[in-house]
Amino acid sequence: MEKDIKKLISQMTLEEKAAMLSGSDSWHTAAVDRLGIPSVMMADGPHGLRRETGVRGESYPATCFPTGSALACSWDRALITRLGSALADECRSQGISIILGPAVNIKRSPLCGRNFEYYSEDPYLSSQTASAYIKGVQSKGVGTSLKHFAANNKETDRMTTDTVVDERTLREIYLASFETAVIEAKPWTVMCAYNKLNGEFCSENRYLLTDILRKEWGFEGMVVSDWGAVNERDDGVLAGLDLEMPTSFGVNTQKIIDAVKSGKIPAEALDRAVGHVLSLVLKCIEAKKSFPHTKTFTDSEHHALAREIASQCMVLLKNDGTLPLKKTGRLAVIGQFAKKPRYQGGGSSHIHPTMLDIPLDEIKKSAPGLTVLYSDGYDLSDETGAPDPALIDEAVKTAESADAAVIFAGLPDSFESEGYDRRHMKMPDSHNALIEAVSKVQKNTVVVLFNGSPVEMPWIGSVSAVLEGYLCGQASGGAAADILFGDVNPSGKLAETFPKKLSDNPSYLNFPGEKPNYVEYREGIFVGYRYYEKKQIAPLFPFGHGLSYTTFEYRGIKTDKTEIGDGDTLTVQVTVANTGKRAGKETVQLYVRDVESSIMRPFKELRGFEKVELEPGEEKTVSFTLSKRDFAYYDTELNSFEVESGTFEILAGGSSADTPLCQTVVYHSGAVRKPKYNKLTQIGEIAKNPAATALLQEFLAKFGLNIDIKALSQWIYEMPLRNIYLTGINIPQEEFDNLIEKLNNL
Amino acid sequence: MEKDIKKLISQMTLEEKAAMLSGSDSWHTAAVDRLGIPSVMMADGPHGLRRETGVRGESYPATCFPTGSALACSWDRALITRLGSALADECRSQGISIILGPAVNIKRSPLCGRNFEYYSEDPYLSSQTASAYIKGVQSKGVGTSLKHFAANNKETDRMTTDTVVDERTLREIYLASFETAVIEAKPWTVMCAYNKLNGEFCSENRYLLTDILRKEWGFEGMVVSDWGAVNERDDGVLAGLDLEMPTSFGVNTQKIIDAVKSGKIPAEALDRAVGHVLSLVLKCIEAKKSFPHTKTFTDSEHHALAREIASQCMVLLKNDGTLPLKKTGRLAVIGQFAKKPRYQGGGSSHIHPTMLDIPLDEIKKSAPGLTVLYSDGYDLSDETGAPDPALIDEAVKTAESADAAVIFAGLPDSFESEGYDRRHMKMPDSHNALIEAVSKVQKNTVVVLFNGSPVEMPWIGSVSAVLEGYLCGQASGGAAADILFGDVNPSGKLAETFPKKLSDNPSYLNFPGEKPNYVEYREGIFVGYRYYEKKQIAPLFPFGHGLSYTTFEYRGIKTDKTEIGDGDTLTVQVTVANTGKRAGKETVQLYVRDVESSIMRPFKELRGFEKVELEPGEEKTVSFTLSKRDFAYYDTELNSFEVESGTFEILAGGSSADTPLCQTVVYHSGAVRKPKYNKLTQIGEIAKNPAATALLQEFLAKFGLNIDIKALSQWIYEMPLRNIYLTGINIPQEEFDNLIEKLNNL
Repeated sequence: MEKDIKKLISQMTLEEKAAMLSGSDSWHTAAVDRLGIPSVMMADGPHGLRRETGVRGESYPATCFPTGSALACSWDRALITRLGSALADECRSQGISIILGPAVNIKRSPLCGRNFEYYSEDPYLSSQTASAYIKGVQSKGVGTSLKHFAANNKETDRMTTDTVVDERTLREIYLASFETAVIEAKPWTVMCAYNKLNGEFCSENRYLLTDILRKEWGFEGMVVSDWGAVNERDDGVLAGLDLEMPTSFGVNTQKIIDAVKSGKIPAEALDRAVGHVLSLVLKCIEAKKSFPHTKTFTDSEHHALAREIASQCMVLLKNDGTLPLKKTGRLAVIGQFAKKPRYQGGGSSHIHPTMLDIPLDEIKKSAPGLTVLYSDGYDLSDETGAPDPALIDEAVKTAESADAAVIFAGLPDSFESEGYDRRHMKMPDSHNALIEAVSKVQKNTVVVLFNGSPVEMPWIGSVSAVLEGYLCGQASGGAAADILFGDVNPSGKLAETFPKKLSDNPSYLNFPGEKPNYVEYREGIFVGYRYYEKKQIAPLFPFGHGLSYTTFEYRGIKTDKTEIGDGDTLTVQVTVANTGKRAGKETVQLYVRDVESSIMRPFKELRGFEKVELEPGEEKTVSFTLSKRDFAYYDTELNSFEVESGTFEILAGGSSADTPLCQTVVYHSGAVRKPKYNKLTQIGEIAKNPAATALLQEFLAKFGLNIDIKALSQWIYEMPLRNIYLTGINIPQEEFDNLIEKLNNL
Repeated sequence: MEKDIKKLISQMTLEEKAAMLSGSDSWHTAAVDRLGIPSVMMADGPHGLRRETGVRGESYPATCFPTGSALACSWDRALITRLGSALADECRSQGISIILGPAVNIKRSPLCGRNFEYYSEDPYLSSQTASAYIKGVQSKGVGTSLKHFAANNKETDRMTTDTVVDERTLREIYLASFETAVIEAKPWTVMCAYNKLNGEFCSENRYLLTDILRKEWGFEGMVVSDWGAVNERDDGVLAGLDLEMPTSFGVNTQKIIDAVKSGKIPAEALDRAVGHVLSLVLKCIEAKKSFPHTKTFTDSEHHALAREIASQCMVLLKNDGTLPLKKTGRLAVIGQFAKKPRYQGGGSSHIHPTMLDIPLDEIKKSAPGLTVLYSDGYDLSDETGAPDPALIDEAVKTAESADAAVIFAGLPDSFESEGYDRRHMKMPDSHNALIEAVSKVQKNTVVVLFNGSPVEMPWIGSVSAVLEGYLCGQASGGAAADILFGDVNPSGKLAETFPKKLSDNPSYLNFPGEKPNYVEYREGIFVGYRYYEKKQIAPLFPFGHGLSYTTFEYRGIKTDKTEIGDGDTLTVQVTVANTGKRAGKETVQLYVRDVESSIMRPFKELRGFEKVELEPGEEKTVSFTLSKRDFAYYDTELNSFEVESGTFEILAGGSSADTPLCQTVVYHSGAVRKPKYNKLTQIGEIAKNPAATALLQEFLAKFGLNIDIKALSQWIYEMPLRNIYLTGINIPQEEFDNLIEKLNNL
């Protein structure tokens, strides 16, 4: 194929080439009929297909699967791959070659309006989830677009903001969320973000698009702009942005032509970009041969899949035993969300669903023997969110007359969306007041939450159980019913920390930014649990937390070595058992902790997970393989991931806050750090090196200063070499420079 | 005098001039006998005089007054001025012309080893304290050296570290601590710090030493290097460093000569520096005429003063009514600090005291009718700090047999000093275990702490009272006795927050720094209570906290205006009453809060304080004057302190955590912020300005695009002007540039 592309390019005119680097409209690549180069079509994702009908705001029906925030809570690679495969089937049924997802931006703040599309605060979990998704979609001949590259973690001023992040933080957190997905899953395209990164727009950022993405990570696909992200098109071509979307109506095509003619864009750079676009087009066309444009599923089948996936994503946050509910007696269902569920977010990912589960109906269907009462509780049409005393009174009466109450609550549409950020982490007062009031009269009060990102729960101590439903797609209602009645044993685990209050969040003092169009990530690598653990701030619910209707016991951890080095792999085996009376799934989480470090590091970091299904009494052993990178931090002196030699703990358990198993290993780093001496080197640094010490002593003796460097005080050790003259000896500059050179040549 | 100096300079050779810019030895300026220019002597401070005897580590006896950390807790400008005056008397008695202090570096972390010398986490309190000190010293013809300029807030790598601080934080926090003292109190000298600031050594930092210190603040004194802080001497001269200390043994004199000859240092720059040194020397000589070299006090008088000051500084942190102690019955005094008190810190400020109060003896003297038992409790000679069960047992028995117990505890010498930073905030285990054990058997357990900076208090819930004695100088013992028995009613208030644990501190993730020789102040302006309040982290004891043996009631607050602008002053009157049965002193604290701001601001900031003495039943009204700066933040666009128009609260009370009085005023800012339009200006920004809106609409219409900008969606509003081409219209670059120019000329 590469040969074909070279040949094709050689036949193209400059105008044709330039035109290939911009969409032909909002969704298609440009065709070159003369050469038989067709156009391929993209469409919004990521959790369902949004193929526009042409009427503003309308799209063709498609299955709305759980959003990213929910999906990541499954911690189930195989399940996510199945979702990807189903999405590909939907794409094929509508002639779509590329679905615009997954979105792996890190949840830096719970306030980011687009968090519902993103996976996690943890780059490992995020990138693993994305890998599984990409593999699923692409296994069926449909391409993905890994987005938004990079550091696009807020909506405020998103097209004009400058995101300022230090190199170590970028590497360990924000880029790491893309890295594994790019390397392992090879997405056909990567989408650059709107924002600037450290002063340069991502759409013209050579460091991101070429140095890291292509050279370091070996990306061979196409780079596409986020829709409208292009700043200076010619700079973009030079930096590595292949395709501009949507169409520039010829404006930027002309700009490229001019830049090539003026020599600003070398011919090779143009051909390289064109080659990337052509490769993608040919790959799409090729794929259509194996996976033709046809519908291979029924909407009902995909709805059932959406329900299954949703039931594996929802997270049981709290349960005093009230859940699962009995299927007899009287149940009060409260809250308009039970009739009008919120199941997806606003913006480019907004799907026209094929069908929609109504939670109230699903509850009735799941438990035909149950008397189900209903009460609105709040009025979604009142955008002030003010409590309505009449509705609350009515709900209280309904709850009083029942054996248990399930309140559907959370965040209404207006509270979060692509395009703007939240200002606070609160649910509407009307929801909170309702929960407070109902829980006062009904001791078996269960709260089901529909929301795209964490909320404060002032009533958490008063309710019996909380099921975090996130925005779980069109089958949210059915999945919730499945879990409420125990038809499905919940197994979701939080992919993000729920802090008790907004001010606990690490980005709180720097979100959306210090001033318009500018944000510094001053918390650095301390994002999510990395911050809460280090700062010892107790969260409302920790990262990785999620309850089950059965119980699990962590029985043992073994490693195949106790000492490892840079080239080694470490196999870790963790044994977990179901000690309860129901079958259930548990996600074994593996964390690595650097026990002592001269570099500031998180308390521990997620480096592995595996979801296992266990029958009552059953025990399984899960195996993990760790290598250098799992112990490493990004070393900004050596510009690579390195490990500091020493003791590490391998911790395993069912939540970041509960890792009962621990195994210690010793790491021997092979990193070579040759000291660099200069006039600011502290005397104490010299004293650490016998050869340097001898050299310096000999040198000083020449000038009549006879001292025993090893015997000097800490006070003197902190002084720089520069200060030798304060002893009263006068060293000519040339001799001093010689000394430094000799020290560096030791 | 200026004329004399000019004349003198004109008579000096280049060699003489260059030699004037370095000390003649460790403590003296260089003399020029030929011209009758004498030498003057400096000596270490700040809380007592350290005039070296010539034998290593030895100095002549001098009164050791309370250290900076204690002194700032007095919140008593008049008292601090009296201290300064007494210090000047001590200087005069030993022929010292300049005392090296005060030290006003902000307490960024409780771990900084030199915190005991510094005043506060708050720049207003710190600079006010320094002003009062400087006025006191200089009123008696002795000069001061305000230090360490600037951003020297740790000891680790202090001579080589780069302190990276953003401009707003520098201005509002770190420089502000110097600013008022420089402008109001006019110290004769300012001492530059060891560290680099934003990449440049303070000793060659033109921004600090010339642009800010001289040009902005109008400093007319001399700039001296910290001892050994010179990096490149010629760059230092150019930047504004006048005098290098100690002597460079001619090395840097030659460097200056060479630089003048080569033209690197212009003649005027050399003369300017020499002029500053000469001015100081002449001022010192002149002062000696009015304040001759003679001893005008007895050591006993100054010891009594030290006791009086110390008793005004100690802070009663907790008291359930056990204090004041009865002077009859049986009292157990426990802890070796009762016999060997810690009362000062290590390093350049270490004083050879004229005499020393032993707390145990002072307690006996204060209450002759009391039976005083004593027990060691712990062994100070054991540097491990491990609890000694035998000593604790004995202490428990002693405590059991008494009516009350006073435990002297805190931080031994090895735990904090100039030259290194603490690693944790804990007291020795031996002290903590002792307090736990004693408080279990003795319900009236009082803890007296001797420590230079905050400690964790795991036992706080078990003890009856805690008196924070800090390092209160040679009369610490007497002052503690005065307060314990109620001979003095305590009135100290914390000048820094005591966090519950180290990880609560804002600098925790960035102290001593991310890597050797490098620290970023990532918490920005959120230092001390500014952080704890904003992040809603409850401290162990808040900034400004301190109890009394009487009670105070805040009765009213009045302002003379309800609306103010940039040129106005606002008078605030606060009425406070003593509602208890003892005379006592209360520090009225005034805070200003910007109720709503588009700029990230602290919850509130200290803008005034006044200590008043009140008889039982007495009421006083304290008056404050506020002006623009008290409402302002540092605006990095306008490069000046500015106020955002809106509502402000003036809060008053006896602690940062207890401000019962509140008065609202509206501020009308005169700051002119002309929008600057460019291709990245958001459409929404245009829409805010009717003229710009009209201009843009008209412009677009020319290209056939007729839209109503006011009617566009938020989505479009966030798009930059640059993206107009996505509508399909093609605007030639020149026309677009014209549009931008026209917008900017509106």
